[in-house]
Amino acid sequence: MSKVASKLEELSLTLPAVATPVANYVPFKVVNNLIYTSGNTPSAGPAGKVGAELSVEEGYQAARNVGLRLIAILNAASGGELDRLEIVKVLGFVACAPDCYDSPKVINGCSDLLVEVFGEAGKHARSAVPTSGLPGNAPVEIELIARFKD
Amino acid sequence: MSKVASKLEELSLTLPAVATPVANYVPFKVVNNLIYTSGNTPSAGPAGKVGAELSVEEGYQAARNVGLRLIAILNAASGGELDRLEIVKVLGFVACAPDCYDSPKVINGCSDLLVEVFGEAGKHARSAVPTSGLPGNAPVEIELIARFKD
Amino acid sequence: MSKVASKLEELSLTLPAVATPVANYVPFKVVNNLIYTSGNTPSAGPAGKVGAELSVEEGYQAARNVGLRLIAILNAASGGELDRLEIVKVLGFVACAPDCYDSPKVINGCSDLLVEVFGEAGKHARSAVPTSGLPGNAPVEIELIARFKD
Repeated sequence: MSKVASKLEELSLTLPAVATPVANYVPFKVVNNLIYTSGNTPSAGPAGKVGAELSVEEGYQAARNVGLRLIAILNAASGGELDRLEIVKVLGFVACAPDCYDSPKVINGCSDLLVEVFGEAGKHARSAVPTSGLPGNAPVEIELIARFKD
Repeated sequence: MSKVASKLEELSLTLPAVATPVANYVPFKVVNNLIYTSGNTPSAGPAGKVGAELSVEEGYQAARNVGLRLIAILNAASGGELDRLEIVKVLGFVACAPDCYDSPKVINGCSDLLVEVFGEAGKHARSAVPTSGLPGNAPVEIELIARFKD
Repeated sequence: MSKVASKLEELSLTLPAVATPVANYVPFKVVNNLIYTSGNTPSAGPAGKVGAELSVEEGYQAARNVGLRLIAILNAASGGELDRLEIVKVLGFVACAPDCYDSPKVINGCSDLLVEVFGEAGKHARSAVPTSGLPGNAPVEIELIARFKD
């Protein structure tokens, strides 16, 4: 079993199915040795804005949920060879109430999962940006770039 | 005539002139086999926010207008060889009223045009992010990454 | 002395120390011949939103401050060889009051510095996007991509 797969098992995490977008875009694009994912919102959990309907901790869990969706997309993009990948860049948006400035603590939910699962190769450059709302009133939307190490 | 050019003709679309930014940045940058564009707002059409002054359909048309501007930039960046390109990644921002969560439907205006014009090569990874406003009170701002296929 | 270093000296600018993030991400990631930085907020200066607590000029200075932080990160990422780099892409977010549409004028503070310091190689593709707030109530957050020219 691969390192990443055994780590997911150890954490009792199962990769969700990769949803096919209902519009003219795709879940990921592989160019050269890079994988670009589309932005993803959580597959479950409460809707709303952090600092209003949701706490920072609930936002963190939402970002962790998105992190798992992104790993599932990387799994599809790499033909199941997650051990070959490193994470390059994460761009995370957090739907925030006007005076909530905790977007980094929220996106940590995704960053922490990536490092738990990929180890050193999970460390990435990152921006965590508040926004006034997100599609479907989701609390977070995250996209990333990964790279085939070999 | 190239495939993309004949498709544009079929759709009765003419590529607009590429505006030179009035500041210290450029419309596009070519690195390795990738083209990075600057963010673009519509060249015409109503200003305002989707869900307030503008409907989702008006936002969609604004995103389509920006899509055509982006194709014009790609045309300049590729020396007129649009057939050599595929679209990799679209990052679209939509100025939204506080309770409008329809940014994906708006950015579809750009995604649909890219696929109409480039076919399979127009399919891209994408994020469609609401924001509280945009430069010049524009309804949308979109940037993209394209790649020389050969 | 390198061209960029002597330019910094001429401008009486000193590169700040590169802060190590206190979470599971890193200040930069080098992949292939590209450097991706994390998003950075100013190391000093007033907090608040442009068009509310801050003027456009104060926002411009904040973006210039971030530009210097980004150059310090590029210096670390390139092992002190800034002359080998060109700037590819800047993505800047500006915390704006609801009716302030001047994000491009604010992000010019970063773009102008990059071109002052790197010359032609400092010209980049760019998006300058307003947002409803930023981490720590910062006025700007900016990330960039640079490339080793050789």
